[in-house]
Amino acid sequence: MIFQRALNSERNFTLNHASSLSQVRIVLVQTSHPGNLGAVARAMKVMGLSDLALVDPKCDINDEARARASGAVDVLEQARIFPSLEDALADTVLAAACTSRRRDLPHPAFTPRQAAPELLKLAQSGPVAVVFGSETFGLSNEQLMKCRWLLNIPSNPDYASLNLGAAAQVLTYELRCSLEDVVLPLPEFDPAPHAAQESLFAVLEKTLIEIEFLDPANPKRLMPRLRRFFAKAGLENEEVAIWRGILNAARARRD
Amino acid sequence: MIFQRALNSERNFTLNHASSLSQVRIVLVQTSHPGNLGAVARAMKVMGLSDLALVDPKCDINDEARARASGAVDVLEQARIFPSLEDALADTVLAAACTSRRRDLPHPAFTPRQAAPELLKLAQSGPVAVVFGSETFGLSNEQLMKCRWLLNIPSNPDYASLNLGAAAQVLTYELRCSLEDVVLPLPEFDPAPHAAQESLFAVLEKTLIEIEFLDPANPKRLMPRLRRFFAKAGLENEEVAIWRGILNAARARRD
Repeated sequence: MIFQRALNSERNFTLNHASSLSQVRIVLVQTSHPGNLGAVARAMKVMGLSDLALVDPKCDINDEARARASGAVDVLEQARIFPSLEDALADTVLAAACTSRRRDLPHPAFTPRQAAPELLKLAQSGPVAVVFGSETFGLSNEQLMKCRWLLNIPSNPDYASLNLGAAAQVLTYELRCSLEDVVLPLPEFDPAPHAAQESLFAVLEKTLIEIEFLDPANPKRLMPRLRRFFAKAGLENEEVAIWRGILNAARARRD
Repeated sequence: MIFQRALNSERNFTLNHASSLSQVRIVLVQTSHPGNLGAVARAMKVMGLSDLALVDPKCDINDEARARASGAVDVLEQARIFPSLEDALADTVLAAACTSRRRDLPHPAFTPRQAAPELLKLAQSGPVAVVFGSETFGLSNEQLMKCRWLLNIPSNPDYASLNLGAAAQVLTYELRCSLEDVVLPLPEFDPAPHAAQESLFAVLEKTLIEIEFLDPANPKRLMPRLRRFFAKAGLENEEVAIWRGILNAARARRD
């Protein structure tokens, strides 16, 4: 712990991404269903988190919990148990409570998407906590007031009852998205040069005339439509070769 | 269907946001755990979705499924069962397969965040599908190829095993987030339904064999490459008609 504080006090920006996630603690208060403990552990590990804290749990880590945890049994078995929320939050630099919209509370409320990057930044200074209440009662006002932020997951106003594991999955997913560049690189693409495309269009037009699909005396908007179609796809070199082969084969048949 | 098409052709600007979500179909292929059926139903309803399709399910909608669905039993009980993926997708204008990163497949891959706004835009033209494979085997290559997009949920590379319900929760959450912060423009796009696309691919393949460009004994990767090309372009109804005309003309020449 002292070592960790020393590290933190350096505000070491070289801490890598994965270590930010390892500084995010998921705190479950008075959970009553073992299956949910397992589901939360799995949700965490899938997104790269590992620090699970159980406050006054109302159930055991049993076979059902382990079954739902699947390959994340390690997270479940390393979970620490605390008698009170206060204890679970003691060393954290920020606690955010996940709750359905509570307009009666004065705390700042954010969506997971807004909060995730801020949580990760703060996680470079020390542990941050995301707190979930019990399945039946949620978090008490007193517990909510111990957290600096409220987190509201967008949902259907007519049925906003997220399962505990599902809520943890959404939160941990947002944390992971903040960490990663969420825009996937475009697939590798070997674009055909303009001249190759134009030459293909010329062969295409000629072939369409030969197979009597295009009437040169009355071309209507066929070639512009086909050009638009090929433009949407974005022709690659290999595709130009394929289409030229197809057109040649189609023309050979007319002999 | 006719009514729906009529609606679409009016490009009715009064279609409200919620109706976009109601056009998103969650398709579960060969699910084996009843609890997952319930979890997916709950994930859907919490985010405002209701159209659940089960393809060749390997379990029943039993008490465990209903317990996990909680207040979303209605979604579960209205689920439609289809013998094949093909049937479940027939009337959709876009199908996206949720899968762990597959670098061996050439299809365009997106994160849920990238894809969600596009899915909702297309949902104004007709049903769109998000497809999930079985817990153990995922989706086969053949099933993946029937989908135009792949969706990759960001996750821990060391343990990327999302539970089916959790994956559905992430996807439906992203759809809801898109709805809440995106004003939907209507597409300038009249996407062809899945069945029309598949039927075109069948004629294309037959024609390529007839013109002796495709050797059925040694097909190599020609059809997957062409499917990828058409997937990049995004087939519209008028384009399906044009391509069918071209293929018919090419085949007529062989007589």
